[in-house]
Parts: sequence; C-alpha cells; structure tokens
Amino acid sequence: MRTLIAGGVVVTAADVLTADVLVDREQIAAVGLGLGASAERVIDAAGRYVIPGGVDVHTHMQLATSGTVACDDFASGTAAAAWGGTTTIVDYAGHDRGEPLLSGLARWQAKAAGAAHIDYGFHMMISQVDDRVLAEFAGLAAAGVSSVKLFMAYPGVYMIDDAAFFRALRRAGELGLLAAVHAENGGPIEVLRAEYVASGLTGPAYHARSRPALLEGEATARAIALAELAGAPVYIAHLSAAEALAAVHVARDRGRPVYAETCPHYLYLDESVLSGPEGARYVCSPPLRQAGTPDLLWQGLRRGDLDVVATDHCPFTTSQKSRGEADFTQIPNGLNGVEERLALLHEGVCRGEISLTRWVDLAATAPARLFGLYPAKGTIAAGADADLVIFDPAATRSLSAATHHGASDYSVYEGLTVHGWPELVMQRGQVLVDADGFHGRPGAGRFLARGMPPLLSAGSPVPVRRRLRRSAHRPTFWACGNGHLTPG
Amino acid sequence: MRTLIAGGVVVTAADVLTADVLVDREQIAAVGLGLGASAERVIDAAGRYVIPGGVDVHTHMQLATSGTVACDDFASGTAAAAWGGTTTIVDYAGHDRGEPLLSGLARWQAKAAGAAHIDYGFHMMISQVDDRVLAEFAGLAAAGVSSVKLFMAYPGVYMIDDAAFFRALRRAGELGLLAAVHAENGGPIEVLRAEYVASGLTGPAYHARSRPALLEGEATARAIALAELAGAPVYIAHLSAAEALAAVHVARDRGRPVYAETCPHYLYLDESVLSGPEGARYVCSPPLRQAGTPDLLWQGLRRGDLDVVATDHCPFTTSQKSRGEADFTQIPNGLNGVEERLALLHEGVCRGEISLTRWVDLAATAPARLFGLYPAKGTIAAGADADLVIFDPAATRSLSAATHHGASDYSVYEGLTVHGWPELVMQRGQVLVDADGFHGRPGAGRFLARGMPPLLSAGSPVPVRRRLRRSAHRPTFWACGNGHLTPG
Amino acid sequence: MRTLIAGGVVVTAADVLTADVLVDREQIAAVGLGLGASAERVIDAAGRYVIPGGVDVHTHMQLATSGTVACDDFASGTAAAAWGGTTTIVDYAGHDRGEPLLSGLARWQAKAAGAAHIDYGFHMMISQVDDRVLAEFAGLAAAGVSSVKLFMAYPGVYMIDDAAFFRALRRAGELGLLAAVHAENGGPIEVLRAEYVASGLTGPAYHARSRPALLEGEATARAIALAELAGAPVYIAHLSAAEALAAVHVARDRGRPVYAETCPHYLYLDESVLSGPEGARYVCSPPLRQAGTPDLLWQGLRRGDLDVVATDHCPFTTSQKSRGEADFTQIPNGLNGVEERLALLHEGVCRGEISLTRWVDLAATAPARLFGLYPAKGTIAAGADADLVIFDPAATRSLSAATHHGASDYSVYEGLTVHGWPELVMQRGQVLVDADGFHGRPGAGRFLARGMPPLLSAGSPVPVRRRLRRSAHRPTFWACGNGHLTPG
Amino acid sequence: MRTLIAGGVVVTAADVLTADVLVDREQIAAVGLGLGASAERVIDAAGRYVIPGGVDVHTHMQLATSGTVACDDFASGTAAAAWGGTTTIVDYAGHDRGEPLLSGLARWQAKAAGAAHIDYGFHMMISQVDDRVLAEFAGLAAAGVSSVKLFMAYPGVYMIDDAAFFRALRRAGELGLLAAVHAENGGPIEVLRAEYVASGLTGPAYHARSRPALLEGEATARAIALAELAGAPVYIAHLSAAEALAAVHVARDRGRPVYAETCPHYLYLDESVLSGPEGARYVCSPPLRQAGTPDLLWQGLRRGDLDVVATDHCPFTTSQKSRGEADFTQIPNGLNGVEERLALLHEGVCRGEISLTRWVDLAATAPARLFGLYPAKGTIAAGADADLVIFDPAATRSLSAATHHGASDYSVYEGLTVHGWPELVMQRGQVLVDADGFHGRPGAGRFLARGMPPLLSAGSPVPVRRRLRRSAHRPTFWACGNGHLTPG
Repeated sequence: MRTLIAGGVVVTAADVLTADVLVDREQIAAVGLGLGASAERVIDAAGRYVIPGGVDVHTHMQLATSGTVACDDFASGTAAAAWGGTTTIVDYAGHDRGEPLLSGLARWQAKAAGAAHIDYGFHMMISQVDDRVLAEFAGLAAAGVSSVKLFMAYPGVYMIDDAAFFRALRRAGELGLLAAVHAENGGPIEVLRAEYVASGLTGPAYHARSRPALLEGEATARAIALAELAGAPVYIAHLSAAEALAAVHVARDRGRPVYAETCPHYLYLDESVLSGPEGARYVCSPPLRQAGTPDLLWQGLRRGDLDVVATDHCPFTTSQKSRGEADFTQIPNGLNGVEERLALLHEGVCRGEISLTRWVDLAATAPARLFGLYPAKGTIAAGADADLVIFDPAATRSLSAATHHGASDYSVYEGLTVHGWPELVMQRGQVLVDADGFHGRPGAGRFLARGMPPLLSAGSPVPVRRRLRRSAHRPTFWACGNGHLTPG
Repeated sequence: MRTLIAGGVVVTAADVLTADVLVDREQIAAVGLGLGASAERVIDAAGRYVIPGGVDVHTHMQLATSGTVACDDFASGTAAAAWGGTTTIVDYAGHDRGEPLLSGLARWQAKAAGAAHIDYGFHMMISQVDDRVLAEFAGLAAAGVSSVKLFMAYPGVYMIDDAAFFRALRRAGELGLLAAVHAENGGPIEVLRAEYVASGLTGPAYHARSRPALLEGEATARAIALAELAGAPVYIAHLSAAEALAAVHVARDRGRPVYAETCPHYLYLDESVLSGPEGARYVCSPPLRQAGTPDLLWQGLRRGDLDVVATDHCPFTTSQKSRGEADFTQIPNGLNGVEERLALLHEGVCRGEISLTRWVDLAATAPARLFGLYPAKGTIAAGADADLVIFDPAATRSLSAATHHGASDYSVYEGLTVHGWPELVMQRGQVLVDADGFHGRPGAGRFLARGMPPLLSAGSPVPVRRRLRRSAHRPTFWACGNGHLTPG
Repeated sequence: MRTLIAGGVVVTAADVLTADVLVDREQIAAVGLGLGASAERVIDAAGRYVIPGGVDVHTHMQLATSGTVACDDFASGTAAAAWGGTTTIVDYAGHDRGEPLLSGLARWQAKAAGAAHIDYGFHMMISQVDDRVLAEFAGLAAAGVSSVKLFMAYPGVYMIDDAAFFRALRRAGELGLLAAVHAENGGPIEVLRAEYVASGLTGPAYHARSRPALLEGEATARAIALAELAGAPVYIAHLSAAEALAAVHVARDRGRPVYAETCPHYLYLDESVLSGPEGARYVCSPPLRQAGTPDLLWQGLRRGDLDVVATDHCPFTTSQKSRGEADFTQIPNGLNGVEERLALLHEGVCRGEISLTRWVDLAATAPARLFGLYPAKGTIAAGADADLVIFDPAATRSLSAATHHGASDYSVYEGLTVHGWPELVMQRGQVLVDADGFHGRPGAGRFLARGMPPLLSAGSPVPVRRRLRRSAHRPTFWACGNGHLTPG
Repeated sequence: MRTLIAGGVVVTAADVLTADVLVDREQIAAVGLGLGASAERVIDAAGRYVIPGGVDVHTHMQLATSGTVACDDFASGTAAAAWGGTTTIVDYAGHDRGEPLLSGLARWQAKAAGAAHIDYGFHMMISQVDDRVLAEFAGLAAAGVSSVKLFMAYPGVYMIDDAAFFRALRRAGELGLLAAVHAENGGPIEVLRAEYVASGLTGPAYHARSRPALLEGEATARAIALAELAGAPVYIAHLSAAEALAAVHVARDRGRPVYAETCPHYLYLDESVLSGPEGARYVCSPPLRQAGTPDLLWQGLRRGDLDVVATDHCPFTTSQKSRGEADFTQIPNGLNGVEERLALLHEGVCRGEISLTRWVDLAATAPARLFGLYPAKGTIAAGADADLVIFDPAATRSLSAATHHGASDYSVYEGLTVHGWPELVMQRGQVLVDADGFHGRPGAGRFLARGMPPLLSAGSPVPVRRRLRRSAHRPTFWACGNGHLTPG
C-alpha cells in the first residue's frame, strides 16, 4: 500500500519546502516532486504543514501517587496524545525499593500493552541506589530502556543523597544511559512544607512557596557539577525556573553535555493561578513560577539552552485534586498537556517566539535523538517510520475540557485559543485521526526498545549521528580516513 | 534527462540518512528509496556522502589592490572552487569614490561573465557614504545585490567614520540589505603602522603587530552597538580574534541579530608563520592571530556564535608577495582557500570539532540562507538546484600548490593532509568534476540575482524561512490563522 | 594657634571613631583622646561627624560655551562649594585650537586667582592632538596639572578621532598624567541631532534622545580598549548610563586600571524631567537617563565600580537656558551641584545605599588620591591640611534656589529634603562657614600644583600610596628589603 | 604609663602616614605629631611600619582529630602567633554530639585559660542540628561566641544535610551570629576516598584527588544559595579552589552578603608538593590545588572577592603525619602558619600583589570587623586596644622549622625568604616581643567576648560601623535625621 501526501509544506528541523511525501507500508519512501505515479492513495496537504509525529518524552500515565492514580491510563492518555498529533511517548516506569528494576518495568509494560494507541517507550525511575541496583542498569539497556530518572527531591520516596546520585550518574554514563534528573533540593523543601503546614498556611499557593525557584536553581547547578565529576551527560527534566535556566546556560557555554526540557505549562502559566479559587488544579512540581518566567523560558528555547518541550502529563480530576483542599501536601501533583503540546508550541511560532523548524525540532526531532529513537522517529526522511501529521495553520481552536480527549474533567488551558491544529495524524502509515474522527485501536501502539542515546555512544559500534549545535562540547567521533562514516 | 545519485549518505544541515537523490534536468526532484525506475543515468554514491554544493560567500577574484591584482581571475578561481566542491561564490564588487554603485557593479559583472565556471553573485563594497550613495542602495537590491560591505579600516581608501557607518547600516536595514563589516579600528592601526615603519620594523610579523586583536575586538563591539542603534542586523566578515568572538557571543546572548563568518586560515594557522622565512605569504587582514586562537574559533563554530566559514580568497604569487619584502605595508593582502575550504572544514569533523550536519550548515546552508540564495542553493531538497557533491571520506589528500588548481604558485596549506575529498561535483545537473577530470566551461556559471536575506524581510511579501537557532532574537513572522504559512 | 575639634565622630574612608582632632595652624596635628591641654580654641563636635573637606574634581566655573558663560565664576562658585562643605575643586582649563596649552592654563589661572575662596587645581581640556600639543604635555605636569581631558564627542569643537585619542592616551600614560574622558560617540549623535532638528523635534527631551545611552556605552568601551592598547589608565568622567557602567565593571574585573566618576544629578534625576515645562533646566551632557538608572548607579557605588562622585557643576540662569526654547541645540549644557554634593551623597547613607566610610571616600579621599592631592587633601590624619567639615546628621534642609549660594536662579534639586548638612567648614585651619555665616575671602583659595596621580608613578621616586581595592589590577611597587617603604 | 611609638609609618586599612602613636596604659590615646611631651617611654619606629596587631580568625590549637592531637597547644601556638605579629586569635571550639554547646565551649575555655599568651575568642563548631541545639544558639551569643561553624563535609563526624544546614543558617542569621562554612561536598568525597583506598591508591596525592576542586565549588555555591533562602549572610572558611572563588564573585556582584577567607598555604603552595617524598606534611582539607590557583587567589584578594586571610593553623609533627604513610585517610589534616601569616601576606605587597593598606585590612581590620572585635581590635585609632606591631620592611628572614616557635618539627614554608618581619609586638600596651626576645606570659591572653558581627546587627541598638565596600548589598542602617548617628 503506497500513500502520497501531496503538495504540503514539509517542515523538518532544518528545511521548509513544498513537496510530496511518499509512504510505503509503514515507512517513508521518498520526499520529492512528481512521486504520485505509484501511489494507491493520495491525501491532499496543500496549504498545510506536513511534520513528523510528535514525540513526548515525559508522561506519567496511570501513575500512582499521593494515594491516588493519575486519571489517564495508557488507553485514554495515548488517544489524547494522538488527537493532538503526538505519535510517540516515553513514559516513566518505576520500581519499589527492594524490587528489581526489570520487575518494575514489567509492571509498567503490562499497563501499556494492549492499551496504548501509539508507540511508547520507558525511562526507569530509580528509587534507591546500591550495588545491586547499579548492577541492574546494564539490564535496562538490554531491555530497551536507555535512560534513568534520578531524584534530588521527595525525601523518603525517591530522593537519593549526593553520594548515591554521583554513583548512579557515573554508572549510567559508563553504560551509555542518559540520566534525567528531577532537580529540586528536597531537604529544605521539607523544612518549609512542615513549617507552612504547622502555621496553617495550607492553600495551593504554599505548595509553590515551599518549593522556591532558588532551590531548583541550586539543585540544577549541583546536578551539573556532579555530572561533570562523573564524566557523564545529564538531562534536566521539567525545568521551570530562571535560576535553573541560568545554570544550564553557563554549563553549555562551558561545553558541558547538559540537556534540558521544559513543559508547556511553564511556557503559558505562572504562579498567579495558584491563588485563584481553583488553585489546586495547577499544582505540579516544580511549581509554576513568578510572572515573567515564561518569557525567559521562550528565550531559552530560542537561544538553544533548552532542547525539548515535553509535557510531564499527569492529570487528575477535580475530585482527586480536592483531596488537598485543606492541605496542599495532599494535592496530587500534575496537569494535563499531552494533547495540547504540539499546538501550544506552534502558537509560539505564531507569536514570533520560535521558528517553524525549531518547532519541529523541539517537539519531535530533538527528543527522538536524545532518547535513542531517531531516525525511526522524529523526522521526515526516507526510511523513517511514517509517523506524520498534517497540521492546518489556518485552524483555530479554543482549548477546553469540553473538547479534549483526556480523562480529566478540567483543562489548565481552558479558553485559550490556538491558531493551528492537526488535521490528520498517521502512525506507521495508518491514519489514527482525520476529519472522520479517531481510527486508533488500543494495543496498536508498539513498545519501542530504544537504542543508546547517540550522544553517549562514543565507544560503541553505532556511529554518533549528530550533535546539538549550540553547546560547545565536542562531538565524540569515529576515526576518519578508514572508510567508515564519520558521525553527523 | 534524469540522473539518480544512488545509495549515498545524504547529509543536510539537519539529517544524515542513506537515500537516493533523483535529479531532473537542473533540479532535485526527490530524495528517497526506490527512485531508480525513471533515471536514465545512475551514479553510485555508496559509502560516500552526498552534500549540497559549497557556497563561498567571500571571494575577491581578480581584485586590484596594493598596486597589483589578485592572481586568480573569475576563470581560474571558479575552476579551483569547483575542484574543491564549491558551486556558488559571492564575490565583492566595488566602486571608485564618485562612481555610481551600479557602474562599479557593471565592471565586476564584465569580469565574471564569460569566465565563471560556477554560479556567482556579488556584494557591493561601499567606498564613501553620502546622500547620493545611500540613494543608490535601492538600485542594488533591484540588481540582485542584497548586501553591502562597510569598512572600519583602511583610512583614505575604504574606511568611513562612525556617522557614515551608522547612516549606511540604517539605510541597508531599511531596505533589507545585509551589511557585512570589516571590523578593525583603522585609526590606531595607521599610527602603529607608521611607527613600525619609521622604526625600521618592516618584516611581515609587523603587519600583524600593527593590527592587534584588541582593535578587531573593539571595532566588532562598535559595529554591533551601531547596528543596534540603527535597528539593523549586521554580519561580521572574516572574524579572526578572540576579542571579536567574545563581542559576538555577548550580543547573541542578548538576542541581537548579529552574524559572523570566519575563514579556514584562521582555523588552521597562527601568527607564528609570519616570522618564518616566507612570512609574506601569510599576510592578510585581519592578520593571523596568536597561538590558541584557532581552538577558540572552532569552539565558536560549535557554540553557534559563528554562522559561516568563507574564504576571503584573494591569492597572489610569490613574486607579487615579494614586493613587500622590505616593507610590510607593500605586501598585497590575501591568501588562497577557495578550493580547500570544504575539505578543511570536513577535517574538523574528523577531528571531532564539529558534526557532519554542522559541516554542511557552515559550508553551504547557512551562507545560502543569510545571503538570499536559499533554497535554490545550500540544501538537498525537492525543487532546489541540483548542485551536489559526492564527497569521499576515505580519500586522503596532501594539500599542495603542485596539485591545486588556482593560479598562485604556493599554498598556505602546503603539506597538510586532509581526510576526505570531493569525488564528483555537479552544478544544476551538469557534472563539473569527476574521476575523468574537469568538465566545466568558462561562462557556464550564471549570475545569481539574490533575494533579500530572509532575516531582514519582515515587511516583505516573502515569508521568512528560518531563524538560526542559537541566537535569542525573535524571528519576524507572518500573521497566523489567516491561511498563510508562518515562517520557518 | 591650636584648635581642638572636640568629641566628634571622626569618619575617614576606613574608620568611624569618637575622638578629638587637634589642628595646629594650617594642618592637623593629631587625632586622639585627651588632646585638649594645648588648644587655644575648642570647637564642640559632639554628636556630629567630623569629615575631611569635600574634594570636587569636576567643575566648570565661568565656562564659555554655546555663546554664553556659566553663571558661577570662581568667586560665587567656590563660595557655594564652601557653604556645602567642599574645600577643594579641580576645574577644567582649556586652550583654543592653535593656542599653547600653558597659555590656556594661564587664562584660567587668571580667572581663579584673587577670586577663589577655596583651594583649586586644574585639569587641561585638549582641543586638538598633534606633535606640538603632545610635546606640551610634559609642561603641564611641571605646572602642577597632572591630568588631561579628552573628548569623544563634540565634533568640530573638542572631539578627536581614535588615532589622536590613542596617541594622547599613550603620551599621558608615559608621563604619568591621568586622562579623563568624555565618553559619548559624537559622530552618530550629530546625525541624530541634525535629523531631529530637521524634523522639527526641537524640545529638550530631544537633546537626550539624540545622545542615547548606547552611544555612551560604546564610547566607554572604546576608551577602555584604546587605553589598554596604550598601556595607560583612564578615568571616565560623568558616567551616566547603565551600558557605560557595565563596560567599566567588565574592565575592572579584568584588572584594568579604569576609574570612573558619576555625578549627583545622575543619582537623583532621570529623563522624565526633560519633558516637563522647564525641561531646558535639566539639559546636560551626557543627558539624564531612563528611570531605573539611578538605582544602578548607586549599586555601582556600592560595588566599587565607580570611584568618585563629582558635580560637573556648570550652572546657567533660566534666562540663559531659555536661549534654546525653540531649539535644543542652543541650550547651554550644565547644572548646579557644587554646594549640594556632600549632602546629596550623605542622603545615600541615610537611605542605606552606601556606608559612612564610603561616603567620605567618594566625596573626598578617592578623588584626592586619584588626582594627586592626597594626603594633603582628602583625609583626616596628622600632617594633612586642616580642611575639615563638622557635619550635623540631625539637620534637615530643603534644597532650594532661595537658599543656595550659587548664582543661578533655579536649582535642579528644588524641594528635595536632605537629612544632614555642614555646620562648620574649615580650610587650612580657617573657618569658612559656621553658625555665624560665611567668613571666606575671595583670593584666599590657593592654586594646588598637583602631584602625579599615584596610580601612574611606577617609575617615579614618589612611593605609590594605595590601590583602590576592588579592581583586580596589580599595584606598581618599590623593591622590598632595601630599607625603602613599599607602596600602600 | 604612657608610651610613644615615634616616627613610624602608620598603616591602617585606609591610610599610610608618618606619625607618632601615643599609648596610654592598655589603649591607644592618639595618633599625631608632637605628642611626645607626656610619654614616659619612647620607642623609635622611624623607617618601619606601625600596624595593628594581627587577627587570625581560624586556628585549631590542641585539636583532637584522626586519633591524635594538633601539636600546638594554646601556650605554644599563641607564643608562635605573637612572634609573628598576631595578637588575637579566634579558635574553633566544638561539642560532642549530644553535648550542650556551652559544655563544649567550657572545655575549650579550660584549654586556653592560663595558657594563652595573646587574646583569644572562639567560634563554635556544630556537630548536629536539632531543636535543642538551635535553641542553644542564643546562649552562644550571650557567652561572647558570635559565630558558628557548619560542615558540608566529613559525613558521620561533622557533616549535616541540607535541611539541617538551612535551619542552622537561618537561626544564626536571626540571632545575628555569622555562620562560617566548611564547603566541600562530603558525600561524593567519601565515594572517591573509599574507591582510591580499595584500589590501593593510598598516597598523599590521593587525599587531594578524592577532594576535587569541583566539589568545593559546588558546595560553596550551595552554601550561598541556602544562605540566600535563609536570609542570612555566610562566611566561606578556607577557600582554596578557583571554582569556589567564582561562586563567591558571582554572589557578591549580585549584592549578596557573602564573605570569604583564604589561607597562606593556598597562596603559596600547590598540589605538586603532595607527590614529593614528604607529601603527608602538606595534607590539609580542602587540599592544595592545581598550579595556577595561587595566582587566582591573589587576584581574588585584589578584587575584593576575598575578605580575610587566616591560617587554619593545625600543625602536626612528622611523626604524627607518618601515621598515614600507608593510607592517606589516616593522615591528620593540617599545617602550620600562625607565625608566618603576617609576613607571608606582606610578601604579597613586595611582589606587587596587594597594597600596604590592603595588607592591614586582610590581616587585621576585616577579620576584626566581621567577627565582632572591631574597633577594640584591628585598627590604630584612639580608644582601640594598644595591640601594635612595628614591622621592619628591610628585614629578611628565611622561614624554617629551625627558627620558628611552634611545636612542629617541620615547616611547610621551609627555605622561603620573606622581606619584612615584626621587630616589636605589643598587646594592650605590653611588649610581647622585641629585640631582647619574648616577654609574654602564659595566661596573659584574655578571652574576648565578641560582639555581634556588625553586618548582622540591623535590628540591634549597636550601630553598624562599616560595610565592606566591594559587595553590592545594601548596608542596614539607622534612621537619619533623628539625632542618632547613621551607620558607617
């Protein structure tokens, strides 16, 4: 079965050109002009963008936390993602303390298998660090889980001390796993939380006040320093604070392999909503920051200090959020976003914050590269998976819980109008969403055994493909002049 | 006539993938797999890179200077370029004081027409600034010359004062012309030159000492400040000094539209060669800098502070250079490089300085974009000119005047071994160079009436295509939600 | 005649202590306790500060400019200074183009002799730079004029180009003269001025708009760069802009001997007053800057980036200012301040901007040191001139033209209340001002043949006394271990 | 008894002047000329400096550590100090976990009483942080111990986690106590130590390798961040690494009240000595750093980023050091320095690193101010203690264990020649050292109940006297205009 997506404006991380895209079964066969002869089906894309399917590398479907469970499971959450143009997620699997990592992974695999409408992979959240756990890191890589998550916050749950953090970073680096970090200093946060509660200051705004930006900045700088000591790269997840952005900026100018992700809610919302009547809806960690921070984060996207926009999608219902009405420490942390991400980021194009090519890079290409999914995912090129979105820049849509497809009964973007929305979403040649509605199927999504993030594979037989351009660190490389290809 | 370049590793500014490239007459028709059916001719590229033809935006063919004329004319110089994989040059036309700009342009056109083997455009060097000259800027744009060169050095010849410089920058910005700048402070340089000569310190090393790095740094910072006052972008030509690089770095972090070019000789040579027996051969302006500077410039390429590597190709023979044996002020300034550029920059890939995709960006894509040649030039995509190079990374070549194709009898890279060399060079579908030798023809090269550099065309009906990613300045853009495409 | 100033809080640049100051004829004999026995006269200072007399190193008494003459001559201007606690000024002498420097100096000497109530010295404003003028620099030093003023603005009047500027800086540095700089880029300013006038935009606010902060920042950075090339220190006069402050900050962190002065009006006023009904009153160059700049300048005083607060006192009457009602280019530039400086700076102590010791340093000690007047002037120590102020921190005063002692009929500080005012002012043991009024006498002030600024006298037999602490540059010094004193 | 120190060059933190100093019993009565009439004794100081007695705020006399005890007790250690011109020390008292702070203090008091030849005070090292210990902080202040030491290293001994660190900083700040910090990240250090030992890499150089500069930089930045969160100032003890200096520099430019101390050994020695045959002699924590670091630290002293030079004097004998011959973890940490400090710092004056006034500031005035001893200690002014040193800049001395007065049998400065040495040392009017030898007496030294460090006493009735100039933070202050004195 050959399908021609005809006449669209094909946008990749580097080019914007009018061309046809020829799909042959599950993959892209060619990008060019006059390719129509052999196609059995033609989809008109004139006047619209053709972009790679979105890659959201930070989701928490069905996560058990704070005594409840995030309301999107792998079925509803991946359907919402597909509606919004995202065709790949990387979710965070976990393990209980004492439980082998692969056992935890198996539990997450069981949740997703048979449920996911789109392709998915997993990071592994590390709850403790000891010789046994470090020894298990090699098994993760073999199982297609090429990244781990380390926590500098949540003492008693996920937080590990600096000695353990250093050992885990170093072991990950040795194996070519990328370590993603939750960078907030959990110790002083616990002091502040306890004091606010003891003082009866228990509203949602005190969730944010107990997690000041300064402590995210400090932890980010510390993560970067310990990664340098470990000789390893590091990935700062859900960066929200100006202080943290500054730490990343300095490190990248010094040539350190430091990567960072922010989320749509940090680009659109600030702490003022926490003081409103429904403040609990907006509680997440790190929290929303002071007015002005979104502008700085958009600047960070332009400068290249931030590499990825992912969602940290972890939605709850109003009812679930209300558990913490009298005590912010009881509010489950998390927001919706997996469906809105692509359009919210495109809105930044409309507002002149970023370019079209940067949009595609942030939403698909860069996350695919960093987490070992490229070039199967993240670009439009011969041989890549035919994960494609026809995106109509002339559409307008008012974001709302009334029309979104996730399970939550509210949206933090309620009433925000975006200019541009996916018109057709295809995965591996199959249309998931079009004007007729949703054609996905639970279980159609495949587990993605991810390769090594290319930035880490200096010693491996797989050539490094590309360096993110801005950062001053040197690419690792293969020897030249020996007939092998050098890295890109 | 349809030609298939089959099985190569296609490298663009963003992607590295194995694919065929289908050429239909003068343009690229498609990039993909299984495209061979319709091709009359197949060129095997397996195991080699397929890249866009090089774009060298800084040459001085046949330039009259210091009482002599650069030894490469448009015939020999563009043949040398083609041998090295460059299929487009933008040379610097000039006018005498009092002469209308278009009259000067016509003289340069006459030199190139009938001689050039490859496509070419022109910048215009401005020798004086007054109401008449500023009024003529509009005519430049209409003539396809969308950039001007302003000089902060060479008093009595090209140098203009800050009032004139400011006026010219502003007028260029209003029209959408990009101003390239020679950034050295000519006043103190003249003081130092006169003093060295008066003191009998007349060797080639004193050429460099009379043009200290500090004065390039100062002038670069001043150019950036005056461009900000003028509300215009600015392009720093032939950046050579750490101080200048620092000024650009700061400006880009502030989000200013400041672009910069360095040259291969600044990446490979330092001032030590000026004290050798043939120091005059290495005399150029700005001069070669102190040891260690090349490393900083490679870092600048990685960080994204530098956008372009062009050559400032302006070669002379040993005999011509010897005019200044007794007095460095009589040495004609300039070096060879137009043939070696692509390979020298690829050598940076081999050494781990930059990535494959960054190589292509610096050598072809970025210069084409900045100077209004993209997407016809500078990328591999459907609809672009079929200017292609098959580059063999397994080839080795010892650079030498004995084997180079320019007119000079020496090479500043004599004896340097590079790993990788063009195997086949094609322009608009015609093979210029292959294993059988040179197939070019004087006059086959076409004059390129360049469009507005896209960064400047905010108010024009031509959509801006792309922003260089690293710099923090906001892209100009079209309105969204009106059915038009937003910029990339 | 021995006088005891008894029981005051003696404040120097380093110490705050309660002690008596014993004055013997014209000098300070001792600072201590129990010194009263030998005194013929006792002045009670309990509960008040005893500080060194103020040193104002930037005044323009009786300056001819814009077709008029500043309304304070050396008599009225120095009386006003004395009323405010300043006992030393360094005024700017000038020469006409073609006129020998010492001839110009003689004209200024004639204005001051017989008129000045307080001690005074001169800087020399350089109107042109050629071999003759540079040769005359040595004569300045011999005449007790150890500093020159160079202008980067006012083309056709004072402005010199970068070649001349570099030569003058270098020659000054060789001789141990300190070069003070008016740092604004005059070329683009003239373009803007002409355009505003041509457009009919002639109000006082356009004076400021034609002299943007960016052009002060640029010129300051250029002056610093050219001073580095010249191997000379440099003193930035009347720094007003954030951009200029940033340039100084960077240079000092790099260890460059760069010094800077700001003025009271930049610490208290911003450009908003220029748009008011009496905008012309506030016209000076550099102009008042945007809101927020005063806070940054206070920060610069705290950080140590700024060394001196001087006044640029150059007042005019309302009638004189009105010459430019219809055209800002006709407004004579300048403001009052010589009387108010000490109290305005002390007000910064009250507001928590600076410390008591820093107040004394900025107003007296640092300017005396930098311009070769220390230790005779600028501190309270045995052997120093008995130039002393008893300053009452409990006094309040509403600044006003009705009560000030200068010749102008308005004050730019009208209505501002300061907390603290001089109660008694003494020069060389003579009381100039006390509760009974003014006791000064025209002609009592002496010309001060200033020594070399100590920062420059590395090769001289006079030991360097002190380095300003913050800047990273190394002090010059005498050999140790030879029985001579090392520098302070 | 009145003593006149006649004709010396009196050096304070601000002034250098030739004058007599009149001492009346234990205090300075006056500084001036012609004061001799009333003196019973005259000491000639012509041609020599008269400076305040040195104040060393970091010593560890008789410290029990690593299973042994530092070889200088309060008798031998303070005698050595006096020989070198130091008349005040602040030693570090400690408490065992579970022991009340004042009980620990009493043990240290007992060691010093009857033994010390010079005046002394104590900081308190905090071994644990809980509600009880925090409650005891108020008692420290009452007991004249106005500073605490917090440790980010030495897990299991002194190290506290970030939550505890934050609480302790905040409590100290509330009370006006200054928190001094040992800033190294102890967690990763322990990992590295264990690994080196397990690998048989046990030489003294591995002590340094297990404590990399990066971990001092990280901890310093973290201490600064947590102090900002706590709203408290912080004092970085024994800063040794470029990374830590950079963190302090950034914080001070931001106006944070961050203070820092370095030690003579970091200014004169680098890690190369650790690989020599007697490497163990040089083991201290933080360790000696890489070549080049001393230059950066001298620059830090010039810039004003570092406020104090203290010794961390904690000497051992060769025999004690040899305990760790086979295992660096068994080497007791510490070096000599209390006698050599003043001369080593003066050597920096001879070498042009710092000025004379800065010498006095770093060695006496600044530490006295920061730790609540000023103005009784640290300056030469009427009313201050007559702690004075006549320092002969013409003396030369080869530092050696053969001639030093401490108990250790080696000196880390063996063979270094200094230019300048104390000729006479006086405390509270009593001569301790002169040409006739040592006149001190064990027990003559008094315990100094220190006041609040003035920087912290915003809310107290004691006026703040002075702000260190360079840092951009605002001084706290009293209201003006109410008859009270404003702060200095």
